[in-house]
Amino acid sequence: MRIDVYLTPGELAPAEIADRTVVVIDVLRATSTIVEALGAGARSIYPVSSIEEALRLANTLGREEVLLCGERKCLPIDGFDLGNSPREFTEDRVRGKTLVMSTTNGTQVMSLAASAPRVLIASFLNAGAVAGELASTEGNIAILCSGRERHFALEDAICAGEILSRLTEERPDDWAMNDGAFAALSLARTFGTGVAMLESTAAGRAIAEVGLGDDLAFCAQHDLRPLIPQLHDRHVSLASPSPAASPR
Amino acid sequence: MRIDVYLTPGELAPAEIADRTVVVIDVLRATSTIVEALGAGARSIYPVSSIEEALRLANTLGREEVLLCGERKCLPIDGFDLGNSPREFTEDRVRGKTLVMSTTNGTQVMSLAASAPRVLIASFLNAGAVAGELASTEGNIAILCSGRERHFALEDAICAGEILSRLTEERPDDWAMNDGAFAALSLARTFGTGVAMLESTAAGRAIAEVGLGDDLAFCAQHDLRPLIPQLHDRHVSLASPSPAASPR
Repeated sequence: MRIDVYLTPGELAPAEIADRTVVVIDVLRATSTIVEALGAGARSIYPVSSIEEALRLANTLGREEVLLCGERKCLPIDGFDLGNSPREFTEDRVRGKTLVMSTTNGTQVMSLAASAPRVLIASFLNAGAVAGELASTEGNIAILCSGRERHFALEDAICAGEILSRLTEERPDDWAMNDGAFAALSLARTFGTGVAMLESTAAGRAIAEVGLGDDLAFCAQHDLRPLIPQLHDRHVSLASPSPAASPR
Repeated sequence: MRIDVYLTPGELAPAEIADRTVVVIDVLRATSTIVEALGAGARSIYPVSSIEEALRLANTLGREEVLLCGERKCLPIDGFDLGNSPREFTEDRVRGKTLVMSTTNGTQVMSLAASAPRVLIASFLNAGAVAGELASTEGNIAILCSGRERHFALEDAICAGEILSRLTEERPDDWAMNDGAFAALSLARTFGTGVAMLESTAAGRAIAEVGLGDDLAFCAQHDLRPLIPQLHDRHVSLASPSPAASPR
């Protein structure tokens, strides 16, 4: 079995993931927010790349039926219902709702990943659940780090390393990995996976600077929501329970 | 002072390096070979992106006047004079010669970097000399890792970390860094900078598989050639000695 980590979105050629189970990570904050929103009862989330696309899709689905959410430069978008702070996605706001979400990095990478046969969404909030799901998946795996405006983002690499570490700890020799995977494992061990690490990253500092520093402690909570969000037909919803684990 | 490491070529937008001193790294093997060739007395090296461009430039410069060198899939190119193994670039072969070099990764990144005001070429063979040169450089710095066919390459990140470590060890608080720089420093500490690390990487394994494993021990030699190769006017040659170090 092969598991490769793409540390930056520019590394990805769609053909490389055409037969893979893909995991998309944007710890700060798109994939943390998606996991939290589904945990709070949202029905589904449509990730889109631009504000224009978000408005167009909201009109198609019915503006009254959806919540528009997302950020630009870490802050909520004018006229949208919610920002990109997972703490905003409470049960009373999102239960049963369809969300249309535009963020700077994560939603763009989800578009790139959409050609893969299976796309899961991960953050620290559901890292253990995703690792468990991958353990019962047949075939090769790719973990895509969204990064920050095309650049490497430490927190995404470290979340990839955390998932890898949990997935491979029992039988590490069963797995072939690329250089990015070895780096991700090492970075998770060295920097740790807690809030101090998030506060030290460029994205973490930018979020703290606009007064949303409490988001970092929220996004650092491990396994708060043991869910498997899956992207299919352009939207993210909870995956059906997987078949029983099969031997690799 | 700011120093950013670009771990993969896809992160780079030329505007970001328009006012920076840039360092290009392709440890396995383009920049190791360039350093060694200049150390062995080559006059200058023209890095080009394609075989066709190499042949065209050789005809322009005069085919008898140049040595054509480079690789595809780690192996020498048919009809070329030399491959991309630094051990081939001996004094009796290259002294006084002009080289035209096409490789898979490093020469492509040098093309991307060419718009920067100053572009230096680094490998483990000259890491200390480059760190010393950067210490006396005013303005911000970008280190570009060539990677491997767009993907992250561990050995390039670690060489970046080695240069960073030497540059910043005296006054680390003087430097602002991006996430890529923090990762590079950490990876160099964890994996080490010797031949065992090179043997563990995807590029190192590919080179060993085609029977050129001795190149890895060669490329792992630290400070064998304390030179500062500089790219200007489309070719790489030895930089003039820098002015005395000025306080930052």
